[in-house]
Amino acid sequence: MGYFISFEGGEGSGKSTVLGLLADSLMNKGYKVVTTREPGGIEIAEQIRNVILDKKNIKMDAKTEALLYAAARRQHLVEKVIPELEKGSIVLCDRFIDSSLTYQGYARGLGMDEVFSINEFAIDGYMPDLTLYFDVSPEIGLSRIQKDGEREVNRLDLESLEFHYKVQEGYQKLLKQFPQRMKIVNAENDIETVVKDALSEVLSFLES
Amino acid sequence: MGYFISFEGGEGSGKSTVLGLLADSLMNKGYKVVTTREPGGIEIAEQIRNVILDKKNIKMDAKTEALLYAAARRQHLVEKVIPELEKGSIVLCDRFIDSSLTYQGYARGLGMDEVFSINEFAIDGYMPDLTLYFDVSPEIGLSRIQKDGEREVNRLDLESLEFHYKVQEGYQKLLKQFPQRMKIVNAENDIETVVKDALSEVLSFLES
Repeated sequence: MGYFISFEGGEGSGKSTVLGLLADSLMNKGYKVVTTREPGGIEIAEQIRNVILDKKNIKMDAKTEALLYAAARRQHLVEKVIPELEKGSIVLCDRFIDSSLTYQGYARGLGMDEVFSINEFAIDGYMPDLTLYFDVSPEIGLSRIQKDGEREVNRLDLESLEFHYKVQEGYQKLLKQFPQRMKIVNAENDIETVVKDALSEVLSFLES
Repeated sequence: MGYFISFEGGEGSGKSTVLGLLADSLMNKGYKVVTTREPGGIEIAEQIRNVILDKKNIKMDAKTEALLYAAARRQHLVEKVIPELEKGSIVLCDRFIDSSLTYQGYARGLGMDEVFSINEFAIDGYMPDLTLYFDVSPEIGLSRIQKDGEREVNRLDLESLEFHYKVQEGYQKLLKQFPQRMKIVNAENDIETVVKDALSEVLSFLES
């Protein structure tokens, strides 16, 4: 079996950019690496994500949203992540269960334990071996997104600043709950420093 | 609050036809009745159902399917069923939680308890007050469907006869688990008899 490493953080934390650069560094060191993000090009999971992010769907209930994320997660896990882990790859995944725990469980107020229970059904014990949390203040994160003209605005970007603060608070709770699995990376630094810090966490995990 | 009555049964049990006729009878008696079925014209639930029933989606994992049904159920419940119950209507719903328990929980082998737990999250205590189970052998049920040329064949109709037998077995287990809530109607009789028997169960519930 390979290793399953998830990347977490609020909007504009830069984690997706870092993930790509980190993958290159690990491959240069000879590791077999696969990068992915939900829905990861899995047709069924893409269809589910289209329902979640459709700006027309303003009536979507928070529990409906949480169940849809769990469904897309399940399909992506089964079709893409598990087969790669079985081949011995290091799978770097942009967002996983912690995103649901903080976005739906905490920020939307569904309860982290309740959202954990439907996700337990979805993931069948495939928790990440390591999770990097890219910490950035909501103001800085959102201002980065607004500058990025090429990125299409989706339903989540339209949430209030207060919502994004709650997301950050939720991640802080998860860091306390899973101190072994989750490691903080300061994502307000320049990109070279963030990549260096993230790489250092991953190598210390792989070499331990 | 009104009353929430669900209609359950295997493919070709005739429950949808009976539901319409029964609604007419109840309205003639002066009851305020609303008929619905998941996804019930709720745009978000329709989108989810399109993903579930798309014949292209042959790679769909059973847990993904169960989560999608729970998501569509949630949205239909919140947008349609609960507002009608709050207006005091009798809501007649074609399929509800028991369908997931037997189709995904039992026939697909996910476990009825596990599927119940994700549905508990979805329904927030809104269990049906009464459930009519229309009992028909899979052979008779499927032969009725094949004669109905106007009905479009979907992904579930393509399952094996063995699958439909397991669905029936699952319903038998539910009848034992919920003897107060679930009542059997023999759906192999002619339609007039089936409607009469179903009406008798509903009236005896309403007048009790």
